[in-house]
Amino acid sequence: MNSALTAAGITGRTRVYGILADPIYHVKAPEVMGALFARHGVDGVLVPLHVTADGLAAVVDGLRHLRNFGGFIATVPHKTATTGLCDALTREAEQIGAVNCVRRDADGRMIGTMLDGIGFVEALRVSGLEPRGRNVALAGAGGAASAIAFALAAAGVARLTILNRTADRAEALAARLRAAYPSLAIAAEGTQAEHDLLVNGTSLGMRPQDAAPFDLTTLHAGQFVAEAIMDPETTPLLAAALAAGCRIQRGLPMLECQIALMARHMGAL
Amino acid sequence: MNSALTAAGITGRTRVYGILADPIYHVKAPEVMGALFARHGVDGVLVPLHVTADGLAAVVDGLRHLRNFGGFIATVPHKTATTGLCDALTREAEQIGAVNCVRRDADGRMIGTMLDGIGFVEALRVSGLEPRGRNVALAGAGGAASAIAFALAAAGVARLTILNRTADRAEALAARLRAAYPSLAIAAEGTQAEHDLLVNGTSLGMRPQDAAPFDLTTLHAGQFVAEAIMDPETTPLLAAALAAGCRIQRGLPMLECQIALMARHMGAL
Repeated sequence: MNSALTAAGITGRTRVYGILADPIYHVKAPEVMGALFARHGVDGVLVPLHVTADGLAAVVDGLRHLRNFGGFIATVPHKTATTGLCDALTREAEQIGAVNCVRRDADGRMIGTMLDGIGFVEALRVSGLEPRGRNVALAGAGGAASAIAFALAAAGVARLTILNRTADRAEALAARLRAAYPSLAIAAEGTQAEHDLLVNGTSLGMRPQDAAPFDLTTLHAGQFVAEAIMDPETTPLLAAALAAGCRIQRGLPMLECQIALMARHMGAL
Repeated sequence: MNSALTAAGITGRTRVYGILADPIYHVKAPEVMGALFARHGVDGVLVPLHVTADGLAAVVDGLRHLRNFGGFIATVPHKTATTGLCDALTREAEQIGAVNCVRRDADGRMIGTMLDGIGFVEALRVSGLEPRGRNVALAGAGGAASAIAFALAAAGVARLTILNRTADRAEALAARLRAAYPSLAIAAEGTQAEHDLLVNGTSLGMRPQDAAPFDLTTLHAGQFVAEAIMDPETTPLLAAALAAGCRIQRGLPMLECQIALMARHMGAL
């Protein structure tokens, strides 16, 4: 990426945006949003803001009081906790119970939305995979996984199996999905090899010591494997999927597909 | 200024710094610090943070909890109030009772210092004016003016006259200066035309409707007029000084001379 494009000269008139995460080093939004701002001539900058769970409320309160602050992207592990710090939520954020983008209105009110799922489904379509009618296995039941689940349901998948270490959370997500999409076949367990689309909605794969989100030994060439993790670019799951002859979807396109939606939510475009 | 130089591509590993001010549009530090970071290969960015007096404590508390935040520059009107939000002050900041640069240590402690005065005196010398032995009239008794007064005293000026709308504040500054520099001739009133160096340490001149910090009708070619305001580049005071044949010192070099000191205080260099 051309660094001259990612961030034009910052002045006193530049509007500031942030991304809240822990850890922070892996986030791609500053570069991707910087490139978008440069293409559209937006005098804005998005900076990485490293905050742990115990500091989140203080940081959001501080950001409320910054009058040239336009909003922030919330990512791991803050997507769920941020809902409680917003003054209003969009329908998607309420449905999913998580937030990944917050606009700061001029009066300091914080308006949260959730665009992960829409971005993920868009990225699948860009990669040539139409989710309608698919038989999907989703690893995870947290913020990102929930957003992806709702967006896949809205896109008309045939069956959705939620695999999560904590069965209770998987069942809770399944119940919320059933309430919104009564005709969708949803299971909280199932055999991985039967599914034609495998989606990792957990953070497993970000750190080298992480367990795999799926059984890597049963992957087969008839499957499409999609990843929500952006760094590393090729997670152990994706490496195994490539080795097994699967088609894959990396994590970055999910962000690229939603970054313009985020910029629009934060009032930058 | 080359915008490609002022801000290299921002990533998740970029360290974040800020400048707190109200208003914010006029601040030059993002560009000047960006150029310094680029010259030294520092992966850092300094962003404008617009906060009013009533939001200052919440913002500083939020910044404490940002683990990739290195520190901030404090400017008008926050230089005095910020002292009370720091965990420790340098000797300069304590002496002057104001802070213009705060380092955030790894444990979240905030360490304030005051570099305005040192930067101002350095800029005078760069412009060819040695302050030693001079007869100085200083407008203002706030944070910037106090810092300049102490640095001029340390640089060996012969006489310092403090002119301020509120006489009590001028007298209070004079008392603090006398305690630190017993042999310096200090007055809280005097005739402007007698002085060979006039310094504006107020914010008068930032807005078009501002009153002049000095009587513009008595300026004469034997005087050197120095300004702490950076925007506009040529304040009405400087315009009048130029018209009267005075040598002048703009505000920006004061910042440029201290920006490396600020970067060092914040641990960026």
